[in-house]
Amino acid sequence: MIIFGVDPGTINTGFGIIKYNKNEFHHITSGIIKPNPKFDLPTKLEHIYNELYELLKKNKPDCFAIETAFYGKNIQSALKIGYVRGVSLLAAIHNNVETNEYSPREIKKSVTGNGGASKEQVMFMVKKLLYLKKEIKLDESDALGIAICHALKTKSLSNKSSSWKDYINANPDKVIS
Amino acid sequence: MIIFGVDPGTINTGFGIIKYNKNEFHHITSGIIKPNPKFDLPTKLEHIYNELYELLKKNKPDCFAIETAFYGKNIQSALKIGYVRGVSLLAAIHNNVETNEYSPREIKKSVTGNGGASKEQVMFMVKKLLYLKKEIKLDESDALGIAICHALKTKSLSNKSSSWKDYINANPDKVIS
Repeated sequence: MIIFGVDPGTINTGFGIIKYNKNEFHHITSGIIKPNPKFDLPTKLEHIYNELYELLKKNKPDCFAIETAFYGKNIQSALKIGYVRGVSLLAAIHNNVETNEYSPREIKKSVTGNGGASKEQVMFMVKKLLYLKKEIKLDESDALGIAICHALKTKSLSNKSSSWKDYINANPDKVIS
Repeated sequence: MIIFGVDPGTINTGFGIIKYNKNEFHHITSGIIKPNPKFDLPTKLEHIYNELYELLKKNKPDCFAIETAFYGKNIQSALKIGYVRGVSLLAAIHNNVETNEYSPREIKKSVTGNGGASKEQVMFMVKKLLYLKKEIKLDESDALGIAICHALKTKSLSNKSSSWKDYINANPDKVIS
């Protein structure tokens, strides 16, 4: 399963693409989309959309994961983050990729085991899980963390049996015949 | 000049297209884009983008005007409005249409002369300026108001002389030769 994680922002939009297979994580690519600060907002949005669209087209992920909530207090910042998230989701939909949203707390909890972890802790675990030796930026690490969170959430969901039939199929040794 | 006004929202997105020529307003079309409330947010965003994209393609406006600020206090509402504004701006950019943003106060002031006017007052003036007899919805009226605001702002800008040369050209009778 290839997962595309995005941490959207008007200044820096982090992205991280990973492969998750048989409990193993592989880093495919990651980076930062940084529109020219002199651009007006619509041009920045177009730049972010175009970059994400091309990355999605090239890497053909199975799913797209993005941060959902916003815990700041500034309405104008929330609005701007909304603009970038809107065009990010659209880039995924235009590539027919399923979208998923996670809260910062869910992401931190999935990656580090602690919902209140610092960004540095998240980066430490992201690098460890992906065997990354090179330096990565904070927004890049956040995007990879979102992708890892999605992998782990999907795994835990698929581990849960939804019916007795599924449970019996998954645990044949527990059936007394 | 053809102007496309939009009042974006996740429940109702109003749009209004007008023609402004020699101080006369003409109503071209207006309405509401209303995604199925059962859709998830990404699907709603796609629906809004697609509808606006087609309207822009068909009507070929010279400019696209949208409300900029948000005066509510709810961060989650600001985020959602941001999502819709982001994809709305993108629909305009993807049609190579110039985008403009106005605050609710600027819009009300332009249309009614009072920055604190009610939505009903805006509707009254919108219908009057566009010679509209039929009933229109509030979000539709707001979108038409945004388009009218852009027309009047552009007019007042083009009336201002930007240099002495322009001023002399515009007022030849004031030059003592």
